[in-house]
Amino acid sequence: MQKLVLIRHGESVWNKENRFTGWEDVDLSEEGLKQAVNAGRLLARHGYTFDMGFTSVLKRSIKTMHFILEELDHLWIPVRKSWRLNERFYGALQGLNKAETVDQYGEEQVHKWRRDPHEHPPAITEDDKRFPGHYLRYFDLTYRELPLTENLSETMDRALPFWHESIVPAIRENKKVIICAHGNSLRALIQYIENLSDEEVTKLDIPTATPWVYELDDKLNSIRHYYLK
Amino acid sequence: MQKLVLIRHGESVWNKENRFTGWEDVDLSEEGLKQAVNAGRLLARHGYTFDMGFTSVLKRSIKTMHFILEELDHLWIPVRKSWRLNERFYGALQGLNKAETVDQYGEEQVHKWRRDPHEHPPAITEDDKRFPGHYLRYFDLTYRELPLTENLSETMDRALPFWHESIVPAIRENKKVIICAHGNSLRALIQYIENLSDEEVTKLDIPTATPWVYELDDKLNSIRHYYLK
Repeated sequence: MQKLVLIRHGESVWNKENRFTGWEDVDLSEEGLKQAVNAGRLLARHGYTFDMGFTSVLKRSIKTMHFILEELDHLWIPVRKSWRLNERFYGALQGLNKAETVDQYGEEQVHKWRRDPHEHPPAITEDDKRFPGHYLRYFDLTYRELPLTENLSETMDRALPFWHESIVPAIRENKKVIICAHGNSLRALIQYIENLSDEEVTKLDIPTATPWVYELDDKLNSIRHYYLK
Repeated sequence: MQKLVLIRHGESVWNKENRFTGWEDVDLSEEGLKQAVNAGRLLARHGYTFDMGFTSVLKRSIKTMHFILEELDHLWIPVRKSWRLNERFYGALQGLNKAETVDQYGEEQVHKWRRDPHEHPPAITEDDKRFPGHYLRYFDLTYRELPLTENLSETMDRALPFWHESIVPAIRENKKVIICAHGNSLRALIQYIENLSDEEVTKLDIPTATPWVYELDDKLNSIRHYYLK
């Protein structure tokens, strides 16, 4: 039996302001920072140790990882960062207030954008300053990989190769792994590990900075899972 | 021409208390933290960008790197950590106050331990709690690699393979590299890059958290170098 810990980043400034964030590189709020530290202390109190960490290329997730590792006295472990663990790319909704978006497009449409795995939010164009192709950190992506918008299903499609190619080999080497990521990239991993339907996974609400522990068997199937409290 | 930036970690709590630190995992002081942030701001003001970072497995160095990268909005770049960039292992001197050590052993002997590249500080034994073999982060080291004491020359010998095997290939791929490390592991790199004699390198005093910039030619020889101010 092997444990795997997933954790969503602490509250960001835009979570607090109720804005769509996506790939916008918004910092942790003061509260989010505290949440991250507390998550680290909780893991330490339960005696968790890790050999390797994985996170996105967004600072709210990277910093959550750093605060957790600091509390565990684990800053020295290798941490791999990948855009594949980024939050879903929310297209033209990025930066908009969620309540205002409801006023403008109606509750039903916004709900669909958020929860229907095949519904695309309005796309940006390549001249939009939110287009990832403008940023150094995404220069390694192929043109095809650079999103203009993403539905949930596409987020899952680009997250899973990282699971298979980078995270699974580490677990197979008996490394104790912690993954710090985002609501939707974590949904992708959870759907895969637990073999959930689209409907089941979109209902899943993942609280910020709360360690979600899997106990996995030799085939990396979930034996059980629970939030660490 | 390619630039390479070396930087020593910010002041640690034991730097401040004038104690031999070595591989003891001492945190940054408040002042050291500020120094790291300021170094990041300085690099940002001069327009520096980086593709890759290298640091030791000691938190004073890792945290200095993180604070620098945060100021540069570069938290997303890959950072590799290696024990080979650790400070020199100071054996039984680790934890001792430098002034008290002078009182006990005499100024001449302490000077020799600090600056003679072939002089070993008193060794610890394997049952000493300072023996790195007790710690998870050094479990990948071979028995031979676990130090009981190190002279300067041995520090250089174990730092250089990391230069050749990990840092040089990154530079050869045209990656802009920042290395955050320790007085003696940086001396090793500087000695090699500039082809300095033992005498020249031991005279070198490297201030904390001050970016030391190399401009390198195609063969990675130094064209010129300077502190960024």
